[in-house]
This record gives sequence, structure tokens and C-alpha cells, in this order.
Amino acid sequence: MSESLLLSRRDLAFQLYDWLDAQSLVRAPRYAEHSRETFDAVIDACERMATDLFAPHYQAADRDEPRFDGTQVHVHPAIAPALRAFAQSGLAAASQDTGRGGMQLPTLIEKAAMTYFYAANVSTIAYALLTMANARLLLAHGTPAQIEAFAQPQLDGRWFGTMCLSEPQAGSSLSDIATRAEFDADTALGAQYRLHGRKMWISGGDHDLAGNIVHLVLAKIPDADGRLVPGTKGISLFAVPKFLPDADGAPGMRNDVVVAGINHKMGYRGTVNCLLNFGEGVHRPHGRAGAIGYLVGAPGVGLACMFHMMNEARIGVGLGAVALGYTGYLHALDYARHRPQGRPVGAAGKDAAQPQVPLIDHADVRRMLLAQKAYVEGGLGLNLYCAKLVDEARVADDADTRRTATQLLDILTPIAKSWPSQWCLAANDLAIQVHGGYGYTRDYKVEQFWRDNRLNAIHEGTHGIQALDLLGRKVTMEGGAAFAALSSRIDAAVSRARSHAALADHAGALGARLARLQDLTRRLWAAGDTARTLADASVYLEAFGHVVVAWIWLEQATVAQGRRGELFDGKRAAADFFFTRELPRVDAMFDLLSAFESSPLRMRDAWF
Amino acid sequence: MSESLLLSRRDLAFQLYDWLDAQSLVRAPRYAEHSRETFDAVIDACERMATDLFAPHYQAADRDEPRFDGTQVHVHPAIAPALRAFAQSGLAAASQDTGRGGMQLPTLIEKAAMTYFYAANVSTIAYALLTMANARLLLAHGTPAQIEAFAQPQLDGRWFGTMCLSEPQAGSSLSDIATRAEFDADTALGAQYRLHGRKMWISGGDHDLAGNIVHLVLAKIPDADGRLVPGTKGISLFAVPKFLPDADGAPGMRNDVVVAGINHKMGYRGTVNCLLNFGEGVHRPHGRAGAIGYLVGAPGVGLACMFHMMNEARIGVGLGAVALGYTGYLHALDYARHRPQGRPVGAAGKDAAQPQVPLIDHADVRRMLLAQKAYVEGGLGLNLYCAKLVDEARVADDADTRRTATQLLDILTPIAKSWPSQWCLAANDLAIQVHGGYGYTRDYKVEQFWRDNRLNAIHEGTHGIQALDLLGRKVTMEGGAAFAALSSRIDAAVSRARSHAALADHAGALGARLARLQDLTRRLWAAGDTARTLADASVYLEAFGHVVVAWIWLEQATVAQGRRGELFDGKRAAADFFFTRELPRVDAMFDLLSAFESSPLRMRDAWF
Repeated sequence: MSESLLLSRRDLAFQLYDWLDAQSLVRAPRYAEHSRETFDAVIDACERMATDLFAPHYQAADRDEPRFDGTQVHVHPAIAPALRAFAQSGLAAASQDTGRGGMQLPTLIEKAAMTYFYAANVSTIAYALLTMANARLLLAHGTPAQIEAFAQPQLDGRWFGTMCLSEPQAGSSLSDIATRAEFDADTALGAQYRLHGRKMWISGGDHDLAGNIVHLVLAKIPDADGRLVPGTKGISLFAVPKFLPDADGAPGMRNDVVVAGINHKMGYRGTVNCLLNFGEGVHRPHGRAGAIGYLVGAPGVGLACMFHMMNEARIGVGLGAVALGYTGYLHALDYARHRPQGRPVGAAGKDAAQPQVPLIDHADVRRMLLAQKAYVEGGLGLNLYCAKLVDEARVADDADTRRTATQLLDILTPIAKSWPSQWCLAANDLAIQVHGGYGYTRDYKVEQFWRDNRLNAIHEGTHGIQALDLLGRKVTMEGGAAFAALSSRIDAAVSRARSHAALADHAGALGARLARLQDLTRRLWAAGDTARTLADASVYLEAFGHVVVAWIWLEQATVAQGRRGELFDGKRAAADFFFTRELPRVDAMFDLLSAFESSPLRMRDAWF
Repeated sequence: MSESLLLSRRDLAFQLYDWLDAQSLVRAPRYAEHSRETFDAVIDACERMATDLFAPHYQAADRDEPRFDGTQVHVHPAIAPALRAFAQSGLAAASQDTGRGGMQLPTLIEKAAMTYFYAANVSTIAYALLTMANARLLLAHGTPAQIEAFAQPQLDGRWFGTMCLSEPQAGSSLSDIATRAEFDADTALGAQYRLHGRKMWISGGDHDLAGNIVHLVLAKIPDADGRLVPGTKGISLFAVPKFLPDADGAPGMRNDVVVAGINHKMGYRGTVNCLLNFGEGVHRPHGRAGAIGYLVGAPGVGLACMFHMMNEARIGVGLGAVALGYTGYLHALDYARHRPQGRPVGAAGKDAAQPQVPLIDHADVRRMLLAQKAYVEGGLGLNLYCAKLVDEARVADDADTRRTATQLLDILTPIAKSWPSQWCLAANDLAIQVHGGYGYTRDYKVEQFWRDNRLNAIHEGTHGIQALDLLGRKVTMEGGAAFAALSSRIDAAVSRARSHAALADHAGALGARLARLQDLTRRLWAAGDTARTLADASVYLEAFGHVVVAWIWLEQATVAQGRRGELFDGKRAAADFFFTRELPRVDAMFDLLSAFESSPLRMRDAWF
């Protein structure tokens, strides 16, 4: 695979430096040791490693799925060396403090660099991403002893980590989890509990990659009567290692957590996905059944701890969807440039006596490529924008800026997660179509991009969950402050763009849609009936997403104004495409929402 | 699998009898022996056979793909018994003359009955469908001797057949095929040629299911100077059996056609797909290299012969897409009714103390189900309507009716093929989403429905090819007669619906869109530049398709007017859904087309 088929480095540089002004981040003391040169060096290293060690086994790890021998999961043999190289590079701790062996890299640059791995092999990098998220959660909520025992080996790349939220009977509805955690003893690693329950959909739940796996598990501590309280209030967070650390911190006694089965998925196959049983007594640490877990954070705030990391996890999903869309676009572009087929329709029709032309000479193929470009570069822009907000929320000088960044991040996260899951999947669909019959075969990667990408609308909160989060919570939170902050950013972009003749129409179109979105939001909430307000939250999410991505495109088109060259021509063309062909879709959605049509609410039993 | 998860028999009966008045077909002498009872008996038999013999190995044949041992292709062992039972039932000749062992069944009923097989196992029934199409083509264009030698064994279910059009370098562009056919001898089976070339994407190209395989092959007869003429004019059609018939008509000498490789697809895996080499000298019939083929029809009209069958083949693709969408809908509905998850949003929000409710109690899940219902029942209606047109074109008393039916069939075929390929695929996407994480696993069938369905926008003419066919040819053919005939049907439906208060708005909405579509079509062709006219043919196809399916829904809603019961309530709800949520999408497309925006035409090299 040529490296240029992962991402466009030229576009990435445009988005990071020309648009998002990433180099300005080094003014913050935390990033003072950095420069555009160090940023680029990290991105270079990731691009190289993704190309050399991750992309080559993308299809092989799909074909030869993880295998469970009844005791242990075995994954494709090319995964371990790739992850070992990743760990040795120090990238697992890229955004962590230098004191922890990290690079103190801005999140913006870390996410940009990681996008290469998503594009090269989303299943293999998933093991590392889960581990990094696990470690970050421990850094935020764990005790110093817990960080030393469980986070540090993960940051060093020696151990791996998982997140254990769902259960077979509780997916989107976490308040219904039934895993029970009973107090056992106080230890140097914190309050020790015994856990009993089953956890479903555990990515990286078991494998042969490393010495230990740290599970971060949501479980309920029973009340004084031994009952599990309904709702989310009783949920606490526990660190449950596969092997309990011995006196030296090395993996020791086997904990009572075992694989009950693995899920066979349509895509994302390289990442093992397990059903784990906790506390079934298969292993009996210290002589009795029950998985030993150490309470992380206070009792009863487990969901809050977990959701503290949710913005970043969801941006990660969005970026993964973008990366699959992006590499699919570049594969389709490459194919379209080299595959001869048919003759274009000229002003007077076709001439069969002419030689065949490359696919890209057909208008319909260029339409499909331009759509992909508009989706993937727009989606990348949105997620990089969010990554920069993570940095601003962390390092900005004044509290107002930090608060605004947090609000913007809160309201944009459901979009950053769901929009690429929908539209960069659509890009993958178009990439298959550009390839014709060949795209439907496993000789080409585009079919796998599409299969892999389909997960992104499901995990880390389904599309419907994101929609309820956006309309049910984010647009009204703090008296609508987040929505107001976002509106003000969009208004500013509209004002800047208006001064360019070539962008004035687009600016006007976006301004009008934003005004309508604001009005619509007020009217939806004025209905006084939450069920009616939220009935079409998914439609609202989709319309809101298109408005947001139109704003991202207007920002990028404004930066490209007056500049010459293919990169800038391409930005203008894709922005034009988005404004003429995508943004107008929202009007029908606004009309629908305004009408409170709500036929799904009325539909009862008349299904067939 | 419960039989009710394939198709709704209640809906099928509504569409066939309440709406399309299938029973009236028996007034034609050809169908005089039939009645609703015989129709239902055939459908019953297909439903039973599909349920008992086809559905059970749907996933197994996907998992254990066809295998090529270097000489011969082996397919999943459950395929042969299913196809044997199908052949023994006489269904392969269902629409053929009773004199040929057929049932003289109307195409409408044949297609309706076959839909059960598509829904149960689209890959297995494909072998039979290709064979039936092959036999029909021979019946239409072959000599009596060719029909006896090659068609009859297929109608009897003893042999199988393929269609060999594409080549590795010529997919959508058939004028570029390079397979050469040189005259060899005159024989009782017609002019005998020797063929040399490679054919790609040959479904059922080889297998271990039967005694012989008849390939219908497009090849070029060289001109007097031995050259292959560019374009489609030199293309002729040949019957090329794997084994040449011996004196008794039984499979005899091995012909010079061999499997060069098989394609490994994303879906539709049970149907083997081959690259075939003709005339490479691996076998040397009568002592020399060259695959022996018998000319079918006149020289140079091969493409016309092949395209004679294309309307039916494309309706077959459309029905396949519908069936996958339909069974996906019923699976999602079943899952949503039985899977408890979360609590609905009530007027005052959620209450975690309440027990979990089935998924279907969530408005967003009902929205996804209603969308599926609107897509699959609408798509089924469109394709059944087309199947009835095939009957009308054949048996109507007067020439005018027959001509109108042919025109309607011509203009509706690209829609009947492409619309379900897009929207019933979207239905499968929603069926996965309703299942959540479980839908992404191979424990449930919905992921396979989605993978299988993705082929339908590619084979038998891609989406882009259908679009050019519709806008570039069908709407203007015979001075716009086909479009006028369709408009007149839609206008009539609008008039009928206007008299029902509950449908007046829908009727008005459809009438307005039809008027705009007519005006737009005129303006597109008034541009005087074919390239500009056709630049957004795909957008035109999509908008046209939604107008057509809105008409289908208006027809069905009109039939349901004033009738009580779940079936009719469901028809009304789905029609309302389509009119309020789907039809309005076309306005943005009309706006785009009216503006001749054509950014894809202008886009050249600025891809990244």
C-alpha cells in the first residue's frame, strides 16, 4: 500500500496549520517544548509505522479472526509486533505528562497522528486506544497507588486495558446492569471488592498480546439490605486485573474473570470482542470465588467517572469513521484514475470508436468522488476542531475560554461521533460503487472499510443515543449556553465569509439555516411534552450535523480564499459541493420537525 | 426460522389481489386455466420450500464459500437438494407454455412466488434464476433444435445456465469486449463457431450441481479483415455448453471452457462467481483449441437479444433487493418486539424505577421500523406492478394496451432495479441499527442481508448506468411516449386519491412533484448539451424514483381507504410516512438539477 492512500498529508497540514493554527498551542506552558517541527515528526513517525506495520495485515486479520481455545484468546500474529512497535515509540503516552514518560503533546496533534493508524488498521490500533483510554481514566480518578499499579504499565505499553460497561441484558440502558460488587477488604490498592456478573461487548477482553489486562468495570454496590438499587446511582467503577499484581507489581495470581465466549462480527474482526464472566469461581483468588476489583473513585459515581472520558472516546469513534472514509476515498480516487472503462458523454453523446477513458473522466464518478471528499475532509475538520477544544479546555489562559471550549466540546461531541458514522460510511459505500464489481470483492479493501465502518453508528452510544444526548440535554444545558457558544462561532464564520464575494451565498445559506435551527429548537422545547419534543431527535441530529459540517466547510473555504493551487481549488470545489448538494437537505428535515409530524409516535401494532 | 420472517403474506395478498387485481389476469386465454386458488397454491408451495429448504442454509453457505480445486468448483452441499426440489416442483418453467412442461403462470404470480426464495436465500436461488433466464432467452431467439438441446434440459431442471457478458477489461462498457468468435462449421445446432476470450463475473460459471452448464456468451465475429469492429455492432450471441451434447443429447465431449479463478465477494457468497477462459486449449474438442459455440439469433444482434431479457433481469434484481429488505424488516420487527431495553421518554422524561420495555416502545425504533416498512412494501409494489406490465404486454386484448404496457415497463425498469437497491439496502442498514451490537454479529442474519444486498446496485447495470438509461433514453424515447404514459397513470392515481379527504394532501403533493419533474425533464433536454443534461443523471434517477414510489404508495393508500384493520392501518401509516418524510427529499434534488450546478463536471485534478 502506498502511504498516500491512508490520508492526504497535504490536507492534514492545511487543517492543522492553515486553518486550526495548531502552532499557536505552543504558547501554552504545557506545550512550550513543542513546535511545528516536533508535531510533524510525530505525525511522520505515525504515518510510517501505520504504513509499514499496521496496513499490511489489515485484510489478513479480518480473514483470520481471533480464536478462543476455551481458555485463552489468540489473535492474528501480525498484531503483536505492530502494537509492540507502537508501545516502544512512546505514542501510548503521547499526550501524558513528560513526568510519566509522556510527550505532553497537544490532543489535537495526538489525534491527527493517530488518524493514520485508524486509516491503516482500525482493528489493530483499537487494542492500544482502549488501553490509552483506560490509563487516562485511572490517571483522572485513581489513587497514586492505583496509577502506579495499573496505569503506568499500560502507558509503558506492557499491559493492555478494557472498558466493561454493557451486559447481555443492558446495552444502551446502563442503569440496568446487574454486576454486583461486594466489599471485601481495605488494601494498599484501595477498597477491595468481589465482583459477580457478566459483561458483554468487551473489545480486547482477552488475547495473547501482553502480560496482563486491566478491566475497568462498572458494577453496583448493594445497599444495606443487599439489594441493587435501580437506576445509575449505585454504579461504581472498579479496576479488575486479569492477573493480580504480586508484591513486585508483576502479574501474579489469576483473578476470577474468564472468557465465556467471543462475538463473531461482520467487520472490525481483528479486534476480539468478548463476553466475560466475573466471579463464577473458575479461578479462586485467595481461596474463594469472586473477581477481585479495586474501587476507583468514590462509590456510586462510576458512571460519571466513565463519562468523563466519553467525549474523547466519542471523538475517537468519529475519527475512526472519518479515517475509514478517508482511506476509502483515496482508494477510490486511485482506482478511478487508473481503470479504463467506457467513454464520457460529450456534448453530442458518445463515440464508441474512441479509446476507453479512465473512470474519473465520467461525470458520475467525479460526483461520487467529490461527495466522498466533502464527507471525509468535512468530518476530519469537525473532529480535529473538537480535539483542539480538548486542548483549549485544558490550557487556555483564562477561565472563560476554558469554559467555552468545554461547552463547545459538549455540544459538538454527539455530532463528531455520529456525523462521520453516517456520512463517512456513505463515503465507503460510494468507494465501493466507484470500484464496480471489483469493489464487491475482497481483493480490494473498500468492502472491508464499509463493513468495519458500520460499527461506528453502534458502539460508544448508538445514533439514537447521540440524538437524545444532543436534543434532550446538550442544546438546553446551562440555559442553552453551549448552543449559544456554538451559534456565536458559526455567526462569526458567516460574517468572515460574507466579505468574500465567492462565499457570500454560502455564508447566507448557512446563516439562514442556523437561524432556523435556533428557532426550531425553541419551538421543540416549547411543546411542553418531552415525548413529542424528542420523537424525532434522530432527524434533528442529522440536520444539526449538516449545519455544523457546513460551518466547518465555510471555515476551510474562507482560509482557502485567494490562494492558488490544487489543494485550495479542491477545498473550494468540495465546499461548493457541500453547500449546493448537502446543506439543502436540511430544509426537508426542518419542515418535518416543525410540523411535529410524529407518525412513529402514533404507530402501534399495524406493522404488517 | 419462522415463515413469517420472510415476507408478509398478508401484504402480498393485499398487493396482488386488492390492489393489482391479479385475479383479472385469468380472463386472458393464456391464463384461463388459472384462478386465485391456483395462484395461491403456487405461492404456498414456494413459501414452504423457501422456508424448509432454502432459509436453513443461508448463513452456512455464506460461511463455507464455494471452493475451486483447480479443476472444478464445489458449492455448499445444502444447495443441490434445495435446487433439486425446486426443479422437481416444475417452478423453473412456471411461466412457460404448458406444452414445454410449464404452468403458463402469469409473470406477476411467478415473481411474487419467487420473492420468497429471494428472501430465504438469494444466493441459492440465483442458480435457478440464471438458468431460467438463459432458457427464456433461448426460447425467444434460439432455433427449435437449440431450444430442444439447450433450453429444455434447463426448464426440466437437469442442466444449469449462465450469462457471459463482462470481461476483465469491459464491465459496464460492453462495446469493448474482446472475445472472438470464428466460424467453424454449419451443424444441426446452427452455425458453429470457435470462441477465444475471457469472461468475468460469471455467476454459476462452474459448480458440481448438475450434468451440464450452458453458457450464453457475447462475442465478436471478426470482419473480413479479421478485425473486431469497435462498438456494439459486431457483438453476437452464442450457446457454449460445458459439455457438448452427444448424439442422444446427453453431456458428451468436454468443451474448451475452463475456470481461471473464482471471485471472493463480500456477500452473495453462496453463488459462485467465476472468471472463465474460453478457447485456451485446455480441452481440445474435435482435436483443436477453441470453445465451440452455436450462434443464437442473427450475427451482430447479440446485444439486442441479451437486452431483450434485460427488463425482466432487472426486475429480478429489484425484487431481490426488496426481498432482502423485507425479510430484514421482519427480523428487526421481531427483535424489537422481544428485546427489552431502557424506558421510553414520556411526557415528563424517563423513570428508571420502571421495568425495561421492549425496544419497539421507543419512538426512534418505531421510526426505523416504519421507514423499513415504507421502503420494502413500496419497493415490492413497484416491482409487482412491473411484473404485471410484463403480463399485460403479452396478453392484453388490444395492441394499444400492449404498447402502453411495454412503454411503462421500459421507463419503470431502471427505477424498479435501482430504487430498491438503494432504499431496501437502507432498510437493511436500519435493521442492523434496531438490533444494536447484536445486529453487527453473525449470530443474526441482518448483517448478511446488508452485505448481500450491496451487490444489487452493481450487477445488471450499475446505478449510474440505470441513471443514463432513464434520463438519456427512456424519458425521451418515442417522443416522450413512455414518460407520457407514466404521467397519465400517476395523474389518474392523483385524481382518484383527491376524492378521499385523508389523501387529498398527499395527492396534491405528488401532483406538484410530477409537474415539476415533467418541467425539469424538458429543461434538462433543452440545454442542448448532452454532457450537461446527463451530468447529474444519478440525482435525477433518485428523485424520479421517489416520485414513482410515492405514486405506488398513493395507489395502495387509496385501496386501503375506508377499510378497517391492522393491515389497512399499516398501509395508511406507511403511506403517511413516505409522503411526509420521503417525498419532500426530492425538492432539494429538483432545485439542484434546475440550477445545472454541475460542479462534478468542472472538477478536474484538485482531489487532495
